Amino acid sequence: MILIDGLECSIYDREIFQELRAGGLDCITNTIAFWESASETMDTIGRWRAMARENADLIMLARSAADIEEAHRQGRTAVLMGAQNSSLLDDRLRWLELFADMGLRVMQLTYNNQNSLGGSCYEQNDSGLSRFGREVVREMNNVGVLVDLSHVGERTGIDAIEWSERPVAVTHANPRSLYEHVRNKGDDLLRALAANGGVLGLATYVNIGGPWCESLDRWCEMVLRTIDLIGIDHVGIGTDLGRKETLDYLNWMRMGRWTRTPNFGAGNPSKPGQVPPPDWFRTTAQFPDLVDGLRRAGLGDAEVDKVAGGNWMRLYEDVFRS
Amino acid sequence: MILIDGLECSIYDREIFQELRAGGLDCITNTIAFWESASETMDTIGRWRAMARENADLIMLARSAADIEEAHRQGRTAVLMGAQNSSLLDDRLRWLELFADMGLRVMQLTYNNQNSLGGSCYEQNDSGLSRFGREVVREMNNVGVLVDLSHVGERTGIDAIEWSERPVAVTHANPRSLYEHVRNKGDDLLRALAANGGVLGLATYVNIGGPWCESLDRWCEMVLRTIDLIGIDHVGIGTDLGRKETLDYLNWMRMGRWTRTPNFGAGNPSKPGQVPPPDWFRTTAQFPDLVDGLRRAGLGDAEVDKVAGGNWMRLYEDVFRS
Repeated sequence: MILIDGLECSIYDREIFQELRAGGLDCITNTIAFWESASETMDTIGRWRAMARENADLIMLARSAADIEEAHRQGRTAVLMGAQNSSLLDDRLRWLELFADMGLRVMQLTYNNQNSLGGSCYEQNDSGLSRFGREVVREMNNVGVLVDLSHVGERTGIDAIEWSERPVAVTHANPRSLYEHVRNKGDDLLRALAANGGVLGLATYVNIGGPWCESLDRWCEMVLRTIDLIGIDHVGIGTDLGRKETLDYLNWMRMGRWTRTPNFGAGNPSKPGQVPPPDWFRTTAQFPDLVDGLRRAGLGDAEVDKVAGGNWMRLYEDVFRS
Repeated sequence: MILIDGLECSIYDREIFQELRAGGLDCITNTIAFWESASETMDTIGRWRAMARENADLIMLARSAADIEEAHRQGRTAVLMGAQNSSLLDDRLRWLELFADMGLRVMQLTYNNQNSLGGSCYEQNDSGLSRFGREVVREMNNVGVLVDLSHVGERTGIDAIEWSERPVAVTHANPRSLYEHVRNKGDDLLRALAANGGVLGLATYVNIGGPWCESLDRWCEMVLRTIDLIGIDHVGIGTDLGRKETLDYLNWMRMGRWTRTPNFGAGNPSKPGQVPPPDWFRTTAQFPDLVDGLRRAGLGDAEVDKVAGGNWMRLYEDVFRS
């Protein structure tokens, strides 16, 4: 069985990598940009190269599904480079290919704000996918970078699913019909995602899981209901886990350089620190518990395989070019 | 026989690519930066990707000696991405690896001015290879980017040859003992280059060839004298050809953003336009004439093979990692 977490936003160090190994994770997608420019993101990629060398016994940077299989054989965790925003392009279409050369494999069209590609789930009016947005999605298709719609506005997301020539992902969100939240996704979008061959990564982040995060069994019930909604081939896990997040890091997510006051997104202004993760999923070392929970909830072996990582692998094989 | 021009600085378009094919060139190194920053160089790489797609019947971007052999079999010209300065690093060591991912394969430590890596041939005092310069040379060794010393100061150049763990190149210069010019290289440097397994690309640029450029036969005589000086395994061709150079382009070479008045380098202030190339080498379509000239001058087939491209191929195989 291949275990994959489709999206994390931890501040990584050797201890976190050890947690990934303790959980038997074969692959995670990290977050190399929220609001960062090209040069800031290149600095981050440079740091990841150094971290990967220093922790080569635990992790490797991956560019393909074959790399993930290789990591699995070697007992290491493959890290896919993911960005939660397209800010790293500095609005240049041609740089997408260059970032793909540097290892970028997943990119969200926009984070919490409208940008030149389209609307965000937090904007009052969602423009839909812009002219530049269409160009970027097509380029992502061509160079093999997975389109992520997690924080993207509903209309822009549906536009992107329709426009994309390859399946796309919502790497970390839950169905809005199960928990009403602007960061979650409506049934229309999720059905279109599935029809296009895409995958939804269900999150353990309590602010968008609501009552489903009250216990592992409840969360697994959410997984089963989501499978009922969009089918067993389109549900994965994308915890949105943020280990070791500092207040500075959270404030960067919330403010970037676009505002002088924190914008809490799915967070709570009265609790500006990190939202405590649920007891049953504090670190990826507990990832096997999720798998056990799904089995207990009634999924068969083949179904558990798909949700725990198999569906992500199929998507990665479809989308990545090398 | 593989034909290679180790350094050109033309403004490329389809006509120039046709000239490369007319000359049967299997490989050239282009110039993607004189003073350009990281983002400017990424724009240039982006343009080259587009040009390579649009002219895929004539050229391909190459990353390895195997790519050059593949281009040869397909009747296309392989283009190695080369920079005549390290300005593209924005002084960040870690970005060298990222530019190597984007296809950079040759980098001159500095162009006409001292920079943070070392001294230039035009500076009055040459610092030698700096602390950062040593780090960059070692990183180039590790990631497989060829060190170019053509415009580098003599002391910095000798330091780099001694410090480098791989052979290095002077892609476009001539021996100073044959034509006294600050842009040409002294015998000590050239002997150290050869001892280290490196290659000198002899230039057809008249300002640094002097009387040796008066006729093809004279130029070939220079080649033979250089072989006498450093050995048949260390002499190649690096014409420094600059097709379609405009005055704006020449002024960028001469001024960058570091001065308000042109600095002519090897050029002549009284003739600010492009220096006319010699009659016998106006375009790469005439490259086979150089080969014929070398044969006429007395080189045997195996020797001609080495000078015309074989020595560059050996060096590329030694240095490039992929």
